Amino acid sequence: MLITKENTLKFDKRYRTNLVNSLSGFKSANLIGTISSEGKTNLAMFNSVIHVGANPPLMGFLMRPVSEERHTYNNIKATGFFTINHINNEIFKQAHQTSARYERDISEFDACGLTAEFTEAIKAPYVKESKIKIGLKFIEEQKLKSNTTIFMVGEIIEILLPDDVTANDGFIDIEKTGTIAISGLDSYHETKRITRLTYAKPGIEISEI
Amino acid sequence: MLITKENTLKFDKRYRTNLVNSLSGFKSANLIGTISSEGKTNLAMFNSVIHVGANPPLMGFLMRPVSEERHTYNNIKATGFFTINHINNEIFKQAHQTSARYERDISEFDACGLTAEFTEAIKAPYVKESKIKIGLKFIEEQKLKSNTTIFMVGEIIEILLPDDVTANDGFIDIEKTGTIAISGLDSYHETKRITRLTYAKPGIEISEI
Repeated sequence: MLITKENTLKFDKRYRTNLVNSLSGFKSANLIGTISSEGKTNLAMFNSVIHVGANPPLMGFLMRPVSEERHTYNNIKATGFFTINHINNEIFKQAHQTSARYERDISEFDACGLTAEFTEAIKAPYVKESKIKIGLKFIEEQKLKSNTTIFMVGEIIEILLPDDVTANDGFIDIEKTGTIAISGLDSYHETKRITRLTYAKPGIEISEI
Repeated sequence: MLITKENTLKFDKRYRTNLVNSLSGFKSANLIGTISSEGKTNLAMFNSVIHVGANPPLMGFLMRPVSEERHTYNNIKATGFFTINHINNEIFKQAHQTSARYERDISEFDACGLTAEFTEAIKAPYVKESKIKIGLKFIEEQKLKSNTTIFMVGEIIEILLPDDVTANDGFIDIEKTGTIAISGLDSYHETKRITRLTYAKPGIEISEI
């Protein structure tokens, strides 16, 4: 089946949104925690968090600075900090509920049944129920000219994770912690590892780790 | 367990790379196809492709304009086009092999056992063995100040996909096409849908679609 750009633009908004959101493949499922300068916590779900670099350790995500996401943006700009919290199979319904358009004075933590927790180093709330949590300092934003989205970059200041999930080579077994994947806007998936593969070199057959 | 930024910087390079690459959650698995102005095809694996917008339909990915990825970058800048091809459970080993550092005059299609195919509209090769393929026109790049990476954005010109995988609301069942997810740098995962959830609204309990 071939769908052209012209077809895509003729679809109704909901159909087009579902379709185009399905095209990138599986997405990461994270809750981003922030706090306002008045001390109001905020929690929002993002499926666009990606790795930016290992040295210095950087992560980024794409946001629309509109409606519910504006709270996250404003808080990051005000405090300079945010947390990224993996969504696992025990909390994905609560996580999904954070995408509802709550008023600014309502904390998604309270409204959705999740628990805020803090560390000394990061001026932003972590999600207690998440098993892999990263505290970041905001360092850069790049506004895309193509639409109204902004790519936000943070430097990793600390990582909180269980004791028994990191392999000898640094790889974290996020499947073991119940981290889930998203497809489209609203489909949640558990995973089953097929294998890890060795570093690829020309002319050498890859093997399983 | 708490890992601080200082810990992270003291790890050896391979350990740090594996660790930090595990933190974003599950990643999309895509092959990006390009062609040089001399007609040499190139294929490279990326785990950073994300949704950028539905109207206009846009997708983006982060790249390091170094070593093997430079071929992709140079080709996109020369022709203005690239393709994004979902990696499925039948071709993930060939896809992984494309990350080896081949010389510019060697096509990863030939070296890794994948087949290039073309359409009228896109001046870049698709991967025949992939089941969901997107043809894009390059429209924007944003260089991050934080490191040497570049966020590349393309506009969707056409989508090639099987006839029976799109739901009534536009959602594409990428699990049905065997699309896989990645964690870390080298771990490949099949998925199993838990559920789709309805659009979240304040005070209304979400349900399964």
